[in-house]
Amino acid sequence: MSLPAETRRPLRIAFVGGGQTSWIGGMHRRAAELDGLWQVVGGVFSSKADRSREAAIAMGLDASRGYPDVATMLAVERSRADGIDAVAVMGPNDTHYPAVAAALDAGLDVMLDKPVSTTAAEARDLAARSRANDQIVAVTHAFSAYPMTRHARHLIATGAIGSVRMLQVEYIQNGTAIPVQPDAMTDRDRWRFDAGRSGLALVFSAIGCHAQHLACSVAGLTVAAVSADAGAIVPNREVIDTMLANLRFTGGARGQFLVTQAAAGGENDIRLRIYGERGLIEWSHQNASYLRLQLEGGGTHLIGRSDPGLPAEILGLARTPRGHPEGMLEAFANIYRETALAITARRADRPITDTTFPTIHDGVHSMAFVEACLASSANQGVWTNLS
Amino acid sequence: MSLPAETRRPLRIAFVGGGQTSWIGGMHRRAAELDGLWQVVGGVFSSKADRSREAAIAMGLDASRGYPDVATMLAVERSRADGIDAVAVMGPNDTHYPAVAAALDAGLDVMLDKPVSTTAAEARDLAARSRANDQIVAVTHAFSAYPMTRHARHLIATGAIGSVRMLQVEYIQNGTAIPVQPDAMTDRDRWRFDAGRSGLALVFSAIGCHAQHLACSVAGLTVAAVSADAGAIVPNREVIDTMLANLRFTGGARGQFLVTQAAAGGENDIRLRIYGERGLIEWSHQNASYLRLQLEGGGTHLIGRSDPGLPAEILGLARTPRGHPEGMLEAFANIYRETALAITARRADRPITDTTFPTIHDGVHSMAFVEACLASSANQGVWTNLS
Amino acid sequence: MSLPAETRRPLRIAFVGGGQTSWIGGMHRRAAELDGLWQVVGGVFSSKADRSREAAIAMGLDASRGYPDVATMLAVERSRADGIDAVAVMGPNDTHYPAVAAALDAGLDVMLDKPVSTTAAEARDLAARSRANDQIVAVTHAFSAYPMTRHARHLIATGAIGSVRMLQVEYIQNGTAIPVQPDAMTDRDRWRFDAGRSGLALVFSAIGCHAQHLACSVAGLTVAAVSADAGAIVPNREVIDTMLANLRFTGGARGQFLVTQAAAGGENDIRLRIYGERGLIEWSHQNASYLRLQLEGGGTHLIGRSDPGLPAEILGLARTPRGHPEGMLEAFANIYRETALAITARRADRPITDTTFPTIHDGVHSMAFVEACLASSANQGVWTNLS
Amino acid sequence: MSLPAETRRPLRIAFVGGGQTSWIGGMHRRAAELDGLWQVVGGVFSSKADRSREAAIAMGLDASRGYPDVATMLAVERSRADGIDAVAVMGPNDTHYPAVAAALDAGLDVMLDKPVSTTAAEARDLAARSRANDQIVAVTHAFSAYPMTRHARHLIATGAIGSVRMLQVEYIQNGTAIPVQPDAMTDRDRWRFDAGRSGLALVFSAIGCHAQHLACSVAGLTVAAVSADAGAIVPNREVIDTMLANLRFTGGARGQFLVTQAAAGGENDIRLRIYGERGLIEWSHQNASYLRLQLEGGGTHLIGRSDPGLPAEILGLARTPRGHPEGMLEAFANIYRETALAITARRADRPITDTTFPTIHDGVHSMAFVEACLASSANQGVWTNLS
Repeated sequence: MSLPAETRRPLRIAFVGGGQTSWIGGMHRRAAELDGLWQVVGGVFSSKADRSREAAIAMGLDASRGYPDVATMLAVERSRADGIDAVAVMGPNDTHYPAVAAALDAGLDVMLDKPVSTTAAEARDLAARSRANDQIVAVTHAFSAYPMTRHARHLIATGAIGSVRMLQVEYIQNGTAIPVQPDAMTDRDRWRFDAGRSGLALVFSAIGCHAQHLACSVAGLTVAAVSADAGAIVPNREVIDTMLANLRFTGGARGQFLVTQAAAGGENDIRLRIYGERGLIEWSHQNASYLRLQLEGGGTHLIGRSDPGLPAEILGLARTPRGHPEGMLEAFANIYRETALAITARRADRPITDTTFPTIHDGVHSMAFVEACLASSANQGVWTNLS
Repeated sequence: MSLPAETRRPLRIAFVGGGQTSWIGGMHRRAAELDGLWQVVGGVFSSKADRSREAAIAMGLDASRGYPDVATMLAVERSRADGIDAVAVMGPNDTHYPAVAAALDAGLDVMLDKPVSTTAAEARDLAARSRANDQIVAVTHAFSAYPMTRHARHLIATGAIGSVRMLQVEYIQNGTAIPVQPDAMTDRDRWRFDAGRSGLALVFSAIGCHAQHLACSVAGLTVAAVSADAGAIVPNREVIDTMLANLRFTGGARGQFLVTQAAAGGENDIRLRIYGERGLIEWSHQNASYLRLQLEGGGTHLIGRSDPGLPAEILGLARTPRGHPEGMLEAFANIYRETALAITARRADRPITDTTFPTIHDGVHSMAFVEACLASSANQGVWTNLS
Repeated sequence: MSLPAETRRPLRIAFVGGGQTSWIGGMHRRAAELDGLWQVVGGVFSSKADRSREAAIAMGLDASRGYPDVATMLAVERSRADGIDAVAVMGPNDTHYPAVAAALDAGLDVMLDKPVSTTAAEARDLAARSRANDQIVAVTHAFSAYPMTRHARHLIATGAIGSVRMLQVEYIQNGTAIPVQPDAMTDRDRWRFDAGRSGLALVFSAIGCHAQHLACSVAGLTVAAVSADAGAIVPNREVIDTMLANLRFTGGARGQFLVTQAAAGGENDIRLRIYGERGLIEWSHQNASYLRLQLEGGGTHLIGRSDPGLPAEILGLARTPRGHPEGMLEAFANIYRETALAITARRADRPITDTTFPTIHDGVHSMAFVEACLASSANQGVWTNLS
Repeated sequence: MSLPAETRRPLRIAFVGGGQTSWIGGMHRRAAELDGLWQVVGGVFSSKADRSREAAIAMGLDASRGYPDVATMLAVERSRADGIDAVAVMGPNDTHYPAVAAALDAGLDVMLDKPVSTTAAEARDLAARSRANDQIVAVTHAFSAYPMTRHARHLIATGAIGSVRMLQVEYIQNGTAIPVQPDAMTDRDRWRFDAGRSGLALVFSAIGCHAQHLACSVAGLTVAAVSADAGAIVPNREVIDTMLANLRFTGGARGQFLVTQAAAGGENDIRLRIYGERGLIEWSHQNASYLRLQLEGGGTHLIGRSDPGLPAEILGLARTPRGHPEGMLEAFANIYRETALAITARRADRPITDTTFPTIHDGVHSMAFVEACLASSANQGVWTNLS
């Protein structure tokens, strides 16, 4: 928990979305501050000025830093000596793109919750803006920042199972399993079940992009084409709650993908299995601190977070001794930490050594993926290339 | 372990295939005889007369009942006072159809190992022959005869999770993960890797039909259409070692299917998850004596074989007290027992009350399924109806 | 499934106890006949002549071989050309000693279910009788004959975890968790809850000796002293339903032992963990086909039955390919098979190579163990040496 | 993450021990600050003034609040307008008692890491001091503050399994499995392996008291007597690395206890099983977010953290939605949060509604427990009452 020598202070960040009653807001704040590298100082917690101000107070922040809109926040913060270094964007899906674009244009770095945008075109635009000024748009795909998913990536990258032949990934959730009657809808329900606001496919925006990113990140592969079936398994629903797809990766490996928010009885269960020419690797969110490696003729290994002998960069992703559970918070915090170190390095003109955390470039791939899935699904399941 | 009153003797059965070095032969024999309802008395253990005879001796059978071919066996057994009641067919895939057809024509019942045939047309022909004379062709899909897969079927049939919305099934195995060099091939390898002899898709004949049957049997559904990808994930292989498919069941439920024999590091791992409107059910072969039932808002239940309160017909599928493991043998034996009781009932002109065990009619569906998958795969993954 | 060349026929065995409604009788019969090395030909299935005869008929045996008592059976069978080779003893606990003694005196070998006797003195007497004539009294402690408990024993014997420092063993069951009202007692309940008939400690006779034998067998150790607490955790019970003990093994290793039949909600759950200087080994009956080996600094290995690379004698204990579950039946059958091979070898004056199966000598140790536990428990828990 | 209305500011706390390289220091700091209710402002991070000051700087604290000793810290902080509200004590075992006594005498509340002291007499003295002024000494037994161990406690308290008959608890770790050579000893090793400094039994001070507290807390029972075996299973070791005990609780329930730091290959594995008259409850640290409830005749329930229908006070212990893993950090933070709310309530003269978190009174019981175990072990394992 030492501060980087370059700053001797935590980086300052403000939220767009994520007020005090939002669990994802609490997650971002705790993750940001867990290692002392970031300090949350304000945000746009509501589009109503007084509510945003009240939220700031309740969160122990300076009341004046509870802003009513992004433009105001960026303008005021720029004028402060202790103004923000970055913005964390986590509101409704259709608010992501304009907030990130404005923050980038204001010269700030961005922590961005998924989905990165509502179309691939928007995502490409954000990527272009960030690249122009060498800014970072980190995406908080926490699943790929668990020590054990990172180690799976390491094992595959270093050839532990040979070249990848196939993978399976799934994200099973009950978030929309039970239909919500119109008069019982919350604000969040209203934008989620409005296809115009939630994006191309609700289930993909909500959870599916996590699964797709995890698979690509761990396998070190990009999807080339899909043969997909997207729709609602809950009767009389207009938004897409379930997506199934067969995948073909660049290089030829096959894949199978299933995400649903309509799994009555489900939790937040994400599983990944990767098949290589010499063995397979399996990881499940329910048992996030362990990784199963089965080698052909070489036995089954259960690898635990912080096992002795793991690479230093994997061991460094944990904060407690072996055997003590860590959770999603620490995985989330890993992305905040890596981004802070990258920002600090850039400011000091040092090379950014760790480029593992997800960025807007991963987000571009996710949006191209969902667009191809929807096109295939609308076209009899025909194999469809990613744009 | 009481004999049926109608016969006061075990039914007599002879093998086609399954000599002393064959594990599946040992499985059939032990399963047949486990409850004392069947007695294995002879068979065609080899196409060479002396080897078939030697096999009979080594298996403790009458040497004269080790036959060189099916026709001879049927003729000789018909002439014996203690001739066979049935034939169990388990040799190379392309030998199934002629052996079953001959046995049916000889008026015998049949225990048939998968695949039932090499084409859907053959399967339909066998179904027609059996129906003509009210004969039984039971198929030994043991996975669907575990107490806990039967209970899953029961739970779904009685509405425990409401109507089925989606299912996932997979069978992961390493049987062909490592390429066999031509000069190292066994007899078994030679017919397996000859697409002309192993049938339409090796992986489907070998294990895939088990997965498809299990899913359909438990869910109580038939597949209407598929969008599939079939091929080899082991480089330079001509037979199909892997099949992925999106499914649409009659009635509209979705499905996802994956079978592979090319999973380096895999065991014989078959998993099934069924999603209903109120909950989900999960079963895995690695933990075959337990079933997981997750109800929306109603908790997660781990149901064990022989738990008090299970239906009598489920409890009756087990032979040891709760907590003591049973295995595939007992599941296999359940099919032999149910078939024996059905034959005995038919002979006594009693109604056949238990019609749960798999038959040639299930086999017809399996063959139509694989034909549709191959057609879809050859046609850009387009949704293809089963014939 | 080949017969031994020496006999070219299965060995013939008769039961004492274990009629058609007895699950353990069914287990013994199936286990005996599973590999074709034994044939059950008769038995004393009831102390009433007509009921024993009826049982024989219902089991498909010759009616004349359903005997009313052991003495008659031994006399009649001796006079038959196809008389029995051995006796399997499995009735109420207090009937074991006289039946085994009579069978040994008649020159027969014995398969003996636990407990071997009701006192250590009786067990020593049986051991002495068997040794005099080089007869075998095999004890059907099936838990120690699973491939994976045998492999645990092998790993420890070959130093995989270094010298053993400590072990834990437990057997948790609900067999007597719910008090049975006197007027609802079955015949079995009546002898079980009569301390005079069930032996020194009901829970030890019923299940505890399995746990103690498993631990000693796998660790390759004998218990030197105990500090124990034996009693009933169900109120107002006179027989002992629970035993806890700290153990000291010859050589100094420590141990912890707990067995109970009063675990409401429990199954038949036996677990063993052995700690060595370099790692630990864990096995659980609920997951009987897998073994967990954790090496200090060397990772966690999940070893599966039939994994490639296991020793041939371990692989030989299984009958189905890797990944397919086997159960208690196959473990039980391993003891029958090993005993048959030992008998056959002795008859052929060949050395008995496999001496792994449990015998009356293990039974002597079990009875000395329970006597020491009861003495310690009655004496304030003081460390008490085994006689 | 809202601040209590009474303070509108976080409580201020300083550390004794736990500098920047200490994992437990990082745990305390993150846990304290996780919900914004505490702020770490300084501490005695080293007994050397300059090192303590440097630690403060590296931790982002005011350099002047890195103190060389407790007395100085208490004096200086008392003089500050923004002085500390509490002290968190976590250094070597023998430093706990004097630090806590001094803090209490200075009128502060205390967060105390285990062991509370090195003798029962010291613990009683601390309890007396705290009671005199109504001060809180919370003990950070995090295992008992997981949502699922709290729910186990709730289930038992509300009769879900009837009255408790027996329990088993164990804590298996490899912390001292490999002997450390004298010349390779760290500072921490030096005080740990010095029996004079580490307390009555190293293993109990390090981990055993967690297991004992967890068992007592969940079962709602106190230990009345023990029959124990304490010693070293690593050869030639003077401190106690392993303790086994049979337990008798007030009211008559039995128990079994095993803790070891000498389990080569072990992690930090703590397991608890509690047997009641109608069922059993099982929890394992490796699967901390789930609880297993097995009811006699009522099935097996797998209860997950944040399952719908759990009591509000259990749901309130979590910070992320169902299915997302949380870890030890959140459990630790629960104790900090509950203590902050208790302090705030006391200051506002409101009743302290939540008194679930562990305190010095639990610590007194732990120290009496270990003293009785050592006495029993030294006296042939004889049952020994707690003082």
